[in-house]
Amino acid sequence: MNYILKNENAIFYECGYSCDNAIFLKLGSESFFITDGRYEIEAKEYAQNTTVLVDRDIIKIANELLKSSKNIQKLIFDPHEWSVADFAKLSAGYRDIFHEDPDFSRKKRIIKTGQEIDKLSWAAKLGANAFENFISKIDLDLIGLDELTLTYLAKEQFSHGGLYELSFDPIVAINANAAKPHARPTNDILKYNDLLLIDAGLKFERYCSDRTRTIFVNKQMQCSTIQRFNSTKMQRVYDIVCKAHDEAISQLRSGMKAFEVDAITRDIITKAGYGDYFVHSTGHGVGLDIHELPVISSKSDVIIEDGMVFTIEPGIYLPDEFGVRVEDTVVMKNGKAEILGA
Amino acid sequence: MNYILKNENAIFYECGYSCDNAIFLKLGSESFFITDGRYEIEAKEYAQNTTVLVDRDIIKIANELLKSSKNIQKLIFDPHEWSVADFAKLSAGYRDIFHEDPDFSRKKRIIKTGQEIDKLSWAAKLGANAFENFISKIDLDLIGLDELTLTYLAKEQFSHGGLYELSFDPIVAINANAAKPHARPTNDILKYNDLLLIDAGLKFERYCSDRTRTIFVNKQMQCSTIQRFNSTKMQRVYDIVCKAHDEAISQLRSGMKAFEVDAITRDIITKAGYGDYFVHSTGHGVGLDIHELPVISSKSDVIIEDGMVFTIEPGIYLPDEFGVRVEDTVVMKNGKAEILGA
Repeated sequence: MNYILKNENAIFYECGYSCDNAIFLKLGSESFFITDGRYEIEAKEYAQNTTVLVDRDIIKIANELLKSSKNIQKLIFDPHEWSVADFAKLSAGYRDIFHEDPDFSRKKRIIKTGQEIDKLSWAAKLGANAFENFISKIDLDLIGLDELTLTYLAKEQFSHGGLYELSFDPIVAINANAAKPHARPTNDILKYNDLLLIDAGLKFERYCSDRTRTIFVNKQMQCSTIQRFNSTKMQRVYDIVCKAHDEAISQLRSGMKAFEVDAITRDIITKAGYGDYFVHSTGHGVGLDIHELPVISSKSDVIIEDGMVFTIEPGIYLPDEFGVRVEDTVVMKNGKAEILGA
Repeated sequence: MNYILKNENAIFYECGYSCDNAIFLKLGSESFFITDGRYEIEAKEYAQNTTVLVDRDIIKIANELLKSSKNIQKLIFDPHEWSVADFAKLSAGYRDIFHEDPDFSRKKRIIKTGQEIDKLSWAAKLGANAFENFISKIDLDLIGLDELTLTYLAKEQFSHGGLYELSFDPIVAINANAAKPHARPTNDILKYNDLLLIDAGLKFERYCSDRTRTIFVNKQMQCSTIQRFNSTKMQRVYDIVCKAHDEAISQLRSGMKAFEVDAITRDIITKAGYGDYFVHSTGHGVGLDIHELPVISSKSDVIIEDGMVFTIEPGIYLPDEFGVRVEDTVVMKNGKAEILGA
């Protein structure tokens, strides 16, 4: 099989190294890692079982390699990885051999190896510890700070003081700001009796963690999924989301289709009258990318299998009021879902 | 003029807001900001003079808008902004009206407004202060730490404790690691008499700063471009790079072509015998993107004009020995180059 990759994580998966300007070309039993002079030394040191080629114009080199490899009938590429401009240059003169395969690398990576699950599990454990540490500081230090500062302190906590990269910029949102599923931090100040939504993760050896908790801020607060709000409406909405999260994880079985998993959370939320306020899908795969396969949505008919790792993250977002999301990352094991990092 | 944008900074430039899943469509006097439910509240609050449309499938909505706007003869798009897959879906049924214009938005943004220069200038000042603060700590606290930790501390310093986003992950490289122009941090420990290369910047109101210093680590160290190394070879190489940097900035005039600017640094380095070790171009535009127009390379015939902002960053990289780069960001003003943040 011949294929060509441009995405950084797709390339890392093949040879254990990547950088932000590289092409990986697999031609039968041979492979080539093409990069520019800035990365030459590291590529030659870290990229495994592949020939490193260096040039300012990596697309031109890939195109020339195709010219010198005359026997290629078919070359797989992912149309999501290539811009219209780069692809036109890459395929000039050889358009016929290129064969579209959307999510080619992500499909290869959908079932995680034991080693990958170990890394994802360790990332999840480190992420869960960071949640504990961050929340334990709220009482002492964080009341009275604004979301911008809280977001920075969350970055510090989840990166373990810079030791790990973050999976994404953490979301730390208070009350009505939590109704924006991907909120930008504001100058709003954290007070006792607030609702606080935290969505954060980190990378361990490039593998991501992802978790969300919605917390009632008081002196007894903790980051389990059991929360007691003093507003009846908040509590009702929280309990619906939490039930959707718990039921999906306990009912999940290998062999189900992804849309059936989505239906578990969506039916609970819809029957409770909040279907219009659950504005995203139930979950997404997690691995080298923070968003990978499988997609757990109403439109996805992927069959869930052992070794898949993905999030379950139902939410209800009431504009100008508040939002609730509860998220864990699970791995399918012996036919059932296990929460990573638990 | 009709155009369609996908890049986050290109969209921000048009309407003052953007997020990581949006399309901006300009059709004559009308414009549309298309995003998904996660960003609805913020888009409606911050995106200026545009109609916000919300859907899970933003490309489908853009395609449908084209269907309902029957008079469009020509729609400009940037082939770098669109993946092959997204573009196929976007243009389905309307391929004929799409007109490629590479770097469409970056070309619009190549001459900065006074307000943009103020922001870039402030970003550069904050960046320069962070350099001073970081280097002043080396003597007290940083000797004996490894590159990984130094890189984290640089992130903290350049983000001003999280107040500002970084333009890019800072590079903090010791001795031979500095010979890798985009080095990954290692466990190597900082000692007195080391060569230390720091390349870092931050964003002020989304506008980037970018600066590099190569420093001799001793008790009298500082981050000006005047450095005294105790190795004759290091000093010789440093002086060549510094001369290339200084001459380019002092000889720069509006009306020159970019390749003439590149030739100033490259000729000095080549004549000194190190041409093969200057493995990248002389500079790049800086604005909302850390790399934008103009490109200051041997192949670029862009005419330099007042209001352009770009880096001058010659370097010499001697594998397994050491590397030197000296970089400032300049603005063209009254026909000459002024260093930002100086």
